[in-house]
Amino acid sequence: MPTTTWNRHHVLTLADFTKAEYDTVLQTAASFQEVLSRRTKKVPSLQGQVVANLFFEASTRTRSSFELAAKRLSADTLNFASATSSITKGETILDTAKTYLAMGTDIMVIRHREAGVPNAIAAEMDRLGVRVSVLNAGDGQHEHPSQGLLDLFTICSIIDPENPRLELLKNKKIAIVGDILHSRVARSNIWSLTASGAQVHLAAPPTLLPQLFADYVSDDGVGEVEGEIANSQSKIQNRNLFIHWQLEPALKDADFVMTLRLQKERMTAHLLPSLREYHQMFGITRSKLQLCHPNVKVLHPGPVNRGVEISSDLMDDPEFSLIQAQVTSGVAVRMALLYLIGSGKS
Amino acid sequence: MPTTTWNRHHVLTLADFTKAEYDTVLQTAASFQEVLSRRTKKVPSLQGQVVANLFFEASTRTRSSFELAAKRLSADTLNFASATSSITKGETILDTAKTYLAMGTDIMVIRHREAGVPNAIAAEMDRLGVRVSVLNAGDGQHEHPSQGLLDLFTICSIIDPENPRLELLKNKKIAIVGDILHSRVARSNIWSLTASGAQVHLAAPPTLLPQLFADYVSDDGVGEVEGEIANSQSKIQNRNLFIHWQLEPALKDADFVMTLRLQKERMTAHLLPSLREYHQMFGITRSKLQLCHPNVKVLHPGPVNRGVEISSDLMDDPEFSLIQAQVTSGVAVRMALLYLIGSGKS
Amino acid sequence: MPTTTWNRHHVLTLADFTKAEYDTVLQTAASFQEVLSRRTKKVPSLQGQVVANLFFEASTRTRSSFELAAKRLSADTLNFASATSSITKGETILDTAKTYLAMGTDIMVIRHREAGVPNAIAAEMDRLGVRVSVLNAGDGQHEHPSQGLLDLFTICSIIDPENPRLELLKNKKIAIVGDILHSRVARSNIWSLTASGAQVHLAAPPTLLPQLFADYVSDDGVGEVEGEIANSQSKIQNRNLFIHWQLEPALKDADFVMTLRLQKERMTAHLLPSLREYHQMFGITRSKLQLCHPNVKVLHPGPVNRGVEISSDLMDDPEFSLIQAQVTSGVAVRMALLYLIGSGKS
Repeated sequence: MPTTTWNRHHVLTLADFTKAEYDTVLQTAASFQEVLSRRTKKVPSLQGQVVANLFFEASTRTRSSFELAAKRLSADTLNFASATSSITKGETILDTAKTYLAMGTDIMVIRHREAGVPNAIAAEMDRLGVRVSVLNAGDGQHEHPSQGLLDLFTICSIIDPENPRLELLKNKKIAIVGDILHSRVARSNIWSLTASGAQVHLAAPPTLLPQLFADYVSDDGVGEVEGEIANSQSKIQNRNLFIHWQLEPALKDADFVMTLRLQKERMTAHLLPSLREYHQMFGITRSKLQLCHPNVKVLHPGPVNRGVEISSDLMDDPEFSLIQAQVTSGVAVRMALLYLIGSGKS
Repeated sequence: MPTTTWNRHHVLTLADFTKAEYDTVLQTAASFQEVLSRRTKKVPSLQGQVVANLFFEASTRTRSSFELAAKRLSADTLNFASATSSITKGETILDTAKTYLAMGTDIMVIRHREAGVPNAIAAEMDRLGVRVSVLNAGDGQHEHPSQGLLDLFTICSIIDPENPRLELLKNKKIAIVGDILHSRVARSNIWSLTASGAQVHLAAPPTLLPQLFADYVSDDGVGEVEGEIANSQSKIQNRNLFIHWQLEPALKDADFVMTLRLQKERMTAHLLPSLREYHQMFGITRSKLQLCHPNVKVLHPGPVNRGVEISSDLMDDPEFSLIQAQVTSGVAVRMALLYLIGSGKS
Repeated sequence: MPTTTWNRHHVLTLADFTKAEYDTVLQTAASFQEVLSRRTKKVPSLQGQVVANLFFEASTRTRSSFELAAKRLSADTLNFASATSSITKGETILDTAKTYLAMGTDIMVIRHREAGVPNAIAAEMDRLGVRVSVLNAGDGQHEHPSQGLLDLFTICSIIDPENPRLELLKNKKIAIVGDILHSRVARSNIWSLTASGAQVHLAAPPTLLPQLFADYVSDDGVGEVEGEIANSQSKIQNRNLFIHWQLEPALKDADFVMTLRLQKERMTAHLLPSLREYHQMFGITRSKLQLCHPNVKVLHPGPVNRGVEISSDLMDDPEFSLIQAQVTSGVAVRMALLYLIGSGKS
C-alpha cells in the first residue's frame, strides 16, 4: 500500500475531494487491483472490523461489490435491506443507523433513495463523537462517489495501468451522455473529471438536463445554459464543463464516452417520447463513435438497457467497452476506500 | 471467560433459570463486552461451528445481533428467512429445522410468530438424540429470553460494570410500562427481574394487561388484578410483582423504567383509543420521570415509536436512556449464550 | 483427498458423466463426509476464492447447502436472489453473470426456472476465455446434477460407507416414483443410475410421464411407451430403464425407492384428480413397501408434502427413510464438486 496521509473520515461526496485524495485512492486501488490478480485475493487489513451494508434502496450489484471488497479485506459484513427492516415498524433511519453503531459497526455503507441520508447519518455519528465512518453508496439524485471514483480509476488505468493518477486526464475530452438531470453518477463524475482538468461535455435532451449547474461549479462561477436553440453550447465559467442538447458536438474527438442509465419510469413522466427515439438521438452506436477519437472507450455504470443507452454489439465489444472493467475496478476502488477509512481505526 | 458449570443445552425460556445461571450469563457477557472494546473483536471459540438463524418472522435487528455475535466467535452463519423458504412449499417447520440439522448446524436461533415453536424444535432435536442447541429469539407472545438477559445485563452493568450480578437488583424498583399483554419481552423480563429480588411494577391500560398472571408467578402463588378501579394496586402473592392500571404509582421512586413497544395494529383491534392518548397516559416523558428516583434510567427493546412509548428528546438523552447500551449489550449477551451453549460441543 | 484427474470445468448435466467421474465425486464426497464428522469441519482448500450463488429461482435449501459447502472449504460467498436483482431493471441474465465474473467470482452456482440458463452462462464464460466455473443448481425441468450426485452418494454410502462407488449399484432395482414429466431431479437421477448398471423403474400416472424418452437413452437406442394399457411395461432398448403406469411393478423387490416432489400447481393444470387420490395410487406407505426388498430404503429430494408423496410416519422412520441422510450428503457432495472444480484454479 502507498504510504500516504488520509484524513477523511467519511466519503459522502466528491465535491470537496482534493487532488491528493484522488491520487491516494487511485494508487491504493491500483495496489488492490494487483492483489486481486494473485492466487489468494485476501488481505488481513480489516480483520475484526464490521462493515454494515445498510441498503434502504435495493442494489444487488453495488451491495455485492462492497460486500466482496469488505470480505477481501477480512472484515465481517452485515447486510441490511429495507424490505426486512424496522423502517416499516416506525423506526427512523437515524435510529436504524444508531442501532448498527451500538452493535459495534465500524463502517456503514449506505444507500437511500433520498438525497442527503448518508450525510445526515454521518453528521449524527460525528455529533455523538463516535469513530464510525459512513460511505455513501448512492443517495437519491445527489451523489454516488464510489462510482465516480471507480469510473475515474477505470479511465486512468487504461491510460497508465502501472501508475493511474489524476493528471493523466488533463485535456482529455470526456462526454457524459444521457439522463444528467436524475443521475447521481453524473454528479459525482462531474466533480472528479473537472477536477482532473479534463474537458467534460454533457449531452442530453433538454428535459433531462438540470437548468442550473450551480452544484457543479466552484465558488467563483455559476454556469447556465444560454439560449434555447438545440445544438447550443455553453461554457461554464471558469470550469472545463460544456453543455449540449445534441449528441454530436459532445462526441466529436472524445477520448471517453460515459453513458448513463435511463430509468424507464422517466417516460411515464413524459420526459421522453419513446425509448426508440431516445436511442436514435442519444444512444451510442458504432457509427456514432466514428465522430470520436479512434481509441475512444465507452463506459456505463450498469445495469445497461441494451439497445437503449448503447447498442448491444458495442456493449460487448472489448475494443470499445470498459463496462466489465468498471465492475472489476469497483471492487478494487471500494477496497481502497474501506482500507483508507478503516485502517485508521484499528 | 469465567470457569463455570453450564449444563443448559437450549435457551427457550427464563422461567426455570437459576440464579447461578443468570450470574454465569452476566459474567460471561461482561468478559465479551471487554473483548468488544479491543482492537480485534474476534475470538476463535466457535471456529468450524455453524449457527443457523431461522427467522420465520422478520427481524433485522435481532438477526443482525445474533449474526454478529456468531461471527465474532468465528462461527459460520447461515441465514434463513421465511419469505424465501420451503414453508410456502408445504414443508413443516420441524422438517425445515431437521433439514438444517442434517446439513450440520450446531446451533439454531429461532424466531417465529407463534408461541412454542422453538420449544417444539428443541424437543424434536432431543428426541432424535442430536447435540444441536436451540436458542429462542422470540416466539409469539411467549418469551424472548435473550432480550430479557440483555436487559438484565444492561441494568446490572450500570450498577457495577466490573462485576454485574443478579443480587445488585435486590430491592431496586423497576417499572415495566406498556403493552404487557402482547409482549414476549415483558414475560422474559418478569422472570429475570422477579428472580433478582427487584420490586417489579407493571403499568398498562386494562386492555393491555393479561387477566391472569399465572404464567408469571411461581407454583405457590397466583395473582389476579382485584377490583376494577383505576389506580388499584394488586400484590402478586409471594412474588415481588405489582400491577397498576395507571402509570404514576409504577414510576414513583423507580430506579429503572422499561418501556415496551406498542404494536400499532393494536389500535385497529380497538384496544387503544389513539396513539396520542396512549402517549399522554403511558408515554414516558421528562416531566413524568420526575416521579422516579433521580438517577432513573429508561430502557426500550426497540424499535421505538418516537413520541408514543417515549418522548423523542428523552430517548436521545444519554443521561436517562439506556437504549443504545441495550443494543451493545445484546451482542455481548448473545456471544455469551452462543459460547456457553456451543463450547461444550467442540 | 483422492489423487485423481478431474478435467471437468463446469457441472451442467450428468448426461455425459463418465464412470470415472462418478467415482471421483463419490470418493471425494466420502473424504469430506469424514471431515464433517470432525471437531473442526473446515478445510482451507478454496481460501480466497469467491463462490457466487446466483439464484434466479428461490430455494433456501439448495442455496444453504451450497453456501455451507463453500464456507467449509473456506471460500467467500456472495448470495444473489432475483427479487433484489437488476433483472427487474432490464439487465439480461448473461449481463448479471458477467457482472459477477468481473467482480472476481471463481465459481457460479446457478438456479433458474428455465432450462438451459446455466449452460448458456457457461458457454459465454468459455467464449470469453475466462476460468470461471458454472455449477447447475437446477434449471427448469432439465437437470439438477448435484441432487443426482447426492442421491447416488447417499445410496452407495448405505451399501458401503467406507468406499462408495458406482459398481455397487449394478443390478440393484431402483424405483423412481411420481411426477417424472416435470422433474429435473428424475432426469439427473436417470442418467447416473442407468450409468451404474442399476435396473431403473419409473412409475407415474400417464399424465406425469414424458411421452418420449429420447433424452434418457444413449445414442444407440430410443424408448417409447408401447401401448396405452395401464400396468404395461416397456423396456427401453439397450438401457436398463423401465416405464410403468402403476406403482406396484416398480416397487416389487426394489432396493431403493426414490419419490419425487409433487408440485401442487400440477393439479390446477388438471394433470391430477386430487392429492388424496394421488397418495392412494402413488404415495409410498408402509404397506406398499411390503412389495419391496426387506431392506428397502426410501429417498425424497425435499421439501416433502407429508401424506402426499410419502406417508408422514414412513418419512420419519430411520429404518426406511434416507431423507435426512440425503441432506447431509448434499453438503459433502457439493463440497466435493466445488473442490474438484475449484482446486484447479488456485
